[in-house]
Amino acid sequence: MKVAVAFSGGLDTCWCIPVLRAEGHEVLTVAVDVGGWSAEEVAQIESRSQLLGAAKHFTIPAADLYFEEVLRVLLAGNVLRGGVYPLCVGAERSLQASVVARIAKEEGCSAIAHGCTAAGNDQIRFEIALRTLAPGLDILAPVRDQAPTRPEQLRALAEAGLSLSAEKAAYSINSGLWGVTIGGVETSGTRHTLPEHAWMRTKGAFDSPKPLRDFSVDFDQGVPVAVDEQLGSPVDLIKKLDALVGAYGFGRGVHLGETILGIKGRVAFEAPAALALIHAHRELEKLVLTKRQIQLKDHVAQFYGEWVHEGLITDPASSDARALLLASQKRVTGRVYCTLSPGNLMVTGVESPYSLHAASKATYGEAVGEWEPQDAYGFSKLYGLSGILHARVGGES
Amino acid sequence: MKVAVAFSGGLDTCWCIPVLRAEGHEVLTVAVDVGGWSAEEVAQIESRSQLLGAAKHFTIPAADLYFEEVLRVLLAGNVLRGGVYPLCVGAERSLQASVVARIAKEEGCSAIAHGCTAAGNDQIRFEIALRTLAPGLDILAPVRDQAPTRPEQLRALAEAGLSLSAEKAAYSINSGLWGVTIGGVETSGTRHTLPEHAWMRTKGAFDSPKPLRDFSVDFDQGVPVAVDEQLGSPVDLIKKLDALVGAYGFGRGVHLGETILGIKGRVAFEAPAALALIHAHRELEKLVLTKRQIQLKDHVAQFYGEWVHEGLITDPASSDARALLLASQKRVTGRVYCTLSPGNLMVTGVESPYSLHAASKATYGEAVGEWEPQDAYGFSKLYGLSGILHARVGGES
Amino acid sequence: MKVAVAFSGGLDTCWCIPVLRAEGHEVLTVAVDVGGWSAEEVAQIESRSQLLGAAKHFTIPAADLYFEEVLRVLLAGNVLRGGVYPLCVGAERSLQASVVARIAKEEGCSAIAHGCTAAGNDQIRFEIALRTLAPGLDILAPVRDQAPTRPEQLRALAEAGLSLSAEKAAYSINSGLWGVTIGGVETSGTRHTLPEHAWMRTKGAFDSPKPLRDFSVDFDQGVPVAVDEQLGSPVDLIKKLDALVGAYGFGRGVHLGETILGIKGRVAFEAPAALALIHAHRELEKLVLTKRQIQLKDHVAQFYGEWVHEGLITDPASSDARALLLASQKRVTGRVYCTLSPGNLMVTGVESPYSLHAASKATYGEAVGEWEPQDAYGFSKLYGLSGILHARVGGES
Amino acid sequence: MKVAVAFSGGLDTCWCIPVLRAEGHEVLTVAVDVGGWSAEEVAQIESRSQLLGAAKHFTIPAADLYFEEVLRVLLAGNVLRGGVYPLCVGAERSLQASVVARIAKEEGCSAIAHGCTAAGNDQIRFEIALRTLAPGLDILAPVRDQAPTRPEQLRALAEAGLSLSAEKAAYSINSGLWGVTIGGVETSGTRHTLPEHAWMRTKGAFDSPKPLRDFSVDFDQGVPVAVDEQLGSPVDLIKKLDALVGAYGFGRGVHLGETILGIKGRVAFEAPAALALIHAHRELEKLVLTKRQIQLKDHVAQFYGEWVHEGLITDPASSDARALLLASQKRVTGRVYCTLSPGNLMVTGVESPYSLHAASKATYGEAVGEWEPQDAYGFSKLYGLSGILHARVGGES
Repeated sequence: MKVAVAFSGGLDTCWCIPVLRAEGHEVLTVAVDVGGWSAEEVAQIESRSQLLGAAKHFTIPAADLYFEEVLRVLLAGNVLRGGVYPLCVGAERSLQASVVARIAKEEGCSAIAHGCTAAGNDQIRFEIALRTLAPGLDILAPVRDQAPTRPEQLRALAEAGLSLSAEKAAYSINSGLWGVTIGGVETSGTRHTLPEHAWMRTKGAFDSPKPLRDFSVDFDQGVPVAVDEQLGSPVDLIKKLDALVGAYGFGRGVHLGETILGIKGRVAFEAPAALALIHAHRELEKLVLTKRQIQLKDHVAQFYGEWVHEGLITDPASSDARALLLASQKRVTGRVYCTLSPGNLMVTGVESPYSLHAASKATYGEAVGEWEPQDAYGFSKLYGLSGILHARVGGES
Repeated sequence: MKVAVAFSGGLDTCWCIPVLRAEGHEVLTVAVDVGGWSAEEVAQIESRSQLLGAAKHFTIPAADLYFEEVLRVLLAGNVLRGGVYPLCVGAERSLQASVVARIAKEEGCSAIAHGCTAAGNDQIRFEIALRTLAPGLDILAPVRDQAPTRPEQLRALAEAGLSLSAEKAAYSINSGLWGVTIGGVETSGTRHTLPEHAWMRTKGAFDSPKPLRDFSVDFDQGVPVAVDEQLGSPVDLIKKLDALVGAYGFGRGVHLGETILGIKGRVAFEAPAALALIHAHRELEKLVLTKRQIQLKDHVAQFYGEWVHEGLITDPASSDARALLLASQKRVTGRVYCTLSPGNLMVTGVESPYSLHAASKATYGEAVGEWEPQDAYGFSKLYGLSGILHARVGGES
Repeated sequence: MKVAVAFSGGLDTCWCIPVLRAEGHEVLTVAVDVGGWSAEEVAQIESRSQLLGAAKHFTIPAADLYFEEVLRVLLAGNVLRGGVYPLCVGAERSLQASVVARIAKEEGCSAIAHGCTAAGNDQIRFEIALRTLAPGLDILAPVRDQAPTRPEQLRALAEAGLSLSAEKAAYSINSGLWGVTIGGVETSGTRHTLPEHAWMRTKGAFDSPKPLRDFSVDFDQGVPVAVDEQLGSPVDLIKKLDALVGAYGFGRGVHLGETILGIKGRVAFEAPAALALIHAHRELEKLVLTKRQIQLKDHVAQFYGEWVHEGLITDPASSDARALLLASQKRVTGRVYCTLSPGNLMVTGVESPYSLHAASKATYGEAVGEWEPQDAYGFSKLYGLSGILHARVGGES
Repeated sequence: MKVAVAFSGGLDTCWCIPVLRAEGHEVLTVAVDVGGWSAEEVAQIESRSQLLGAAKHFTIPAADLYFEEVLRVLLAGNVLRGGVYPLCVGAERSLQASVVARIAKEEGCSAIAHGCTAAGNDQIRFEIALRTLAPGLDILAPVRDQAPTRPEQLRALAEAGLSLSAEKAAYSINSGLWGVTIGGVETSGTRHTLPEHAWMRTKGAFDSPKPLRDFSVDFDQGVPVAVDEQLGSPVDLIKKLDALVGAYGFGRGVHLGETILGIKGRVAFEAPAALALIHAHRELEKLVLTKRQIQLKDHVAQFYGEWVHEGLITDPASSDARALLLASQKRVTGRVYCTLSPGNLMVTGVESPYSLHAASKATYGEAVGEWEPQDAYGFSKLYGLSGILHARVGGES
């Protein structure tokens, strides 16, 4: 039958091609580019597909779609898993699956194959999305189900004409628009972090002294529209910020989190642009949203982030959450000022035509402009009244 | 009548003494030391009280109580307002009020006075706590209610024998165990941050290059018990970390938040120890708590932090939240490894006898040890099933 | 100046007219009809306004607006305060205030007056809404601020030409589209409920035996569109259901809740239609929404209900919540079957073109159609894995 | 090997005995009595075990344990799934599994067997609990894995000496302390409810007229301690209330919910005591807990109920939630007055030494005792201030 392979050009997805062909299938490859690949990488992906005998290959540029469908909502929710990690990978997989599903249906395929192993989150994300969006198609997972060893994979690929280095790279890397994740010997335990040379986007940031660097980001309804007053598309601005901020070594982290499957997983990541944007956006929100708006959207974003992580972005609950998060962005418009020093980003100021700070005739701790002393007195009497009654009736609390 | 003044030795609380005495009251002063004052500052507080004619003065060391009653719960909840601010001040006020209330009752006072103005949060925190804990006593707020000008205050104090500088300090500073907050001309707007010279605990951190500095923190059931394997009380360890981490310039921030009164307030802060401990503690939790524990306690901590900020720590809801947050700490025991560079703290490793990471025979993304491929297949089929059914029945989502 | 009075024709708002006129104001009265008044009541309201010398009177039919702006969102959220009370009154006040604000601005008034006392919630709801929506106008609250006694009010009204009964009604009643609330001697304590004769919409329901009565309600995207397959506007259907369901004595309750001001308040209520619709709607949602959708919207509805109760519907957080609640209703379309017996309503069945129950090839507890035994085995292994690891590492939990 | 069978005496668990014996195992049977069985049922369970050749049988009375470990927490949280269903079954399974695990370990078994099919929730609950609490033992699920037909099961049992009726009962019934669930042809669809004759605990309730019946329930720290002022253990009081309330036909319902496996399941239930206690307890809480306590515990109870339903009571998150829910019950002490009429229970009054209603000098809507008019004015100004500023700066919301 006709099988569409979700293709990244790596060992696992390459191996799927000869294996599926050997089973008699016609193989199409679909590489969904969500903004983390260079032109060279795309070229290599395409040539490997051809070399391995895929009948057809599609490279689908999907970075704009990725921003629109997922990243702008993660940004609206200031989503950081465990307080640190901007979901660099999880969201990509579901989106890639949705694009592959579309192509597979358009091309009349009977099945979709992915190259995920049994050990990680991605198999779950792919399969939930595919079952949801392409319910009529079979899902093949030859890597998971046959569990080939690395030498077996290399041998099969060599036979098919593709010779890959026998040596496993020291680090496995997943590069995307919202960040890069890096796994290696250090992250398979919990005691150590990456050595300096293993970082990608912040490499060398601390090699030589750097002057402070100020920059600004403009947002319009929660979406970044300019960096240093230079307009650009969100995707372009993210790439620009990644270079600018990454050069200062900001955006590194190690995240230890619960995988969808219930074990703990640890991963190093670099997400200079994502972290800079989330910090900047969150500070702008503090200027223009009310306390209750922030309280509510924080709750909802916690659910949304969890679901994106767990591959549940196709559950309608995610689109309900999205409705709230986007509704909250109506006035998240303004400019955020930041200063970079090595390893550090500080948001130094925020401005907005919708500033609630500027709206007030009072200044916190200084000038009383919205109320009189007796109003504050009355407020203090009533705001804690139920706790006061509780103490009154009960002796000790 | 006999009045206990919650006394800090600053302009406002000093001014209360002659004013209350002039009204015929006997004045006691109570300074509740929650760990932010030096010995010199305590001495000055005591001498000012005496000079201004207080009948009696109490300096109550309350740092240990403060940690036990409040900070350990804030730490258990990893509470950061707006993702950045460790509630340096809010929690102090309610605790100070509770201690003053106790002394006032023991000394047979009929009233308690505070020196808060009408413009800020502290009046609310003081009054809610006092009404709750000392319901039989009157509350006097001469600064709020008479709204004296600064020259009027200086004149009254000079007449009472205390000459203070006519010039207002450029920055108003509140120094406590959990951090220092700094307000000045920059923070009364939203565009600028403090100039370098205005910082207190991180001053000069960037003046000269510094080597990387590794350190470790040990926790026992969520409470810090050692730094660099040197045992100490929580309060001592916080002070030690403040020096160690502050010297690297980590812990600065500017927070823009909604005040209890509904306007936005902006404040600069330095909380080297608090931020280091929260980061370290949170990473340790990721090692030993399940996903659902973290999810639940994050929800509860959001409420708890809000209530502490708003002076509602005496509401019994706060003690219900406390019960959960402390229950969740049973296994938050282990060592956290950190590395400091200027402006940056990175948690590089965690270890615990309760490590859920070590408990697993599987390694994320690498080794399948807890399940077989077909188990993961089954899981992926069922975990997203309701979303799949939703798509099946409805066409587009 | 020109003052618009939010007018209900009751003692308090009537008294405002002569009082404001005596102060030299030109008085306009605005009665906002949110569906709880009969034609006779509207006529009486209008004649009292005229009699007392209002320069102009407006009766604004606002029931449809009330449903559209508030009730459909409360219904989408299945909002029941304390598990029982459908917010019969709170939501009305904010909406009435918004309509009065609009009229006052159109008529060039300088102030708006309300007749609320200092003892209840309504003053807060009115004033928050008015300050938000008509920030340029003064707010007058003569009843609260002058605290007239009942005899004083009667005397003033008699002088102005309106003679009202000197005897206070045994029960104070607030009748609205979403229910009636009744306060009396019993509800001022917590021990007793209303006597049978004091009920309004369910009076006599238990006097004689009644056969079972089946009926159906159709919803379209969460909005009721038909009762017993008879189409009607939401407002008409609510009125129809109130009669039908009220005749069976269903919808009574007593609610004890915390008022905005912090004390406990107790009120009897009858809300036959509101409770019937919420029950029916909730059961239909269970058929068409996924677990995660329900989980999320329940959280959001808890906040929304709190804010509506507390007069905060004008906070933008309420409209963010509204966006999610309405987004969740896309498929809440179908028919709900109910059976009435005296004092009881049972939802006996639900049907929908979007039924997730019908979508499944499996039947709970009976037929396995979506998975194989080994899939369930795999799921059970992974779904509780983190708790299993927790037990493994820690001995006892 | 030695296998402990979680035994209920029904077709499925009976069938396990000859099947496991035929495979050469020594079979022990463990019947965990959580309060839903009569003495006759227990006798039948024991005789069937013996007849089928179990080497040993244990009947473990566990109703008190069940109340202490689970039901009191569900009651503390007022847990009703989907607003109606008191989790009659889910909680039993996890508890039964924990008792079987204990016996199996004490008896030196190598495996535990359950009789659940592949179609329902119980397999998941059993297996998560067993894997968590008896990680060293194998888990056998012959019914799920061999999927025998009913005739096959009957034949095997007849061969083993137990003749059961060939005719399947029209309704499958699960009777427990917290309620009975009933499944039949009607509940396998969504359109119909049970016929009158199929109900168990409320059968005949509507056959003849009944006078109103008043009763009271006393709670001590959230636990029922008396009915009609007659003291009793919680388990005895639940049984007493089940008879009293069930005779009036209150406590029936049909619940449609999402199963753990992701499909919708529908079940009829009768839980007279559970529903009466939850209603009574919730109203008592409204009298003694503050708004913020209720808000917080409602959030936490939503999570807790979900986890109990999904068999995750052994996740440590459940015990964290338990800590909060029990902490909140310190003052849930007092008497609740109820009135029964056919099909209806009304809570008519509540009394407590910790009444927050009685603690207040103010009466809602009537007497101002805790504040002055100007306090309420001040409060109204500040409570909605951020929404007011939002409107001020933005024009329309």
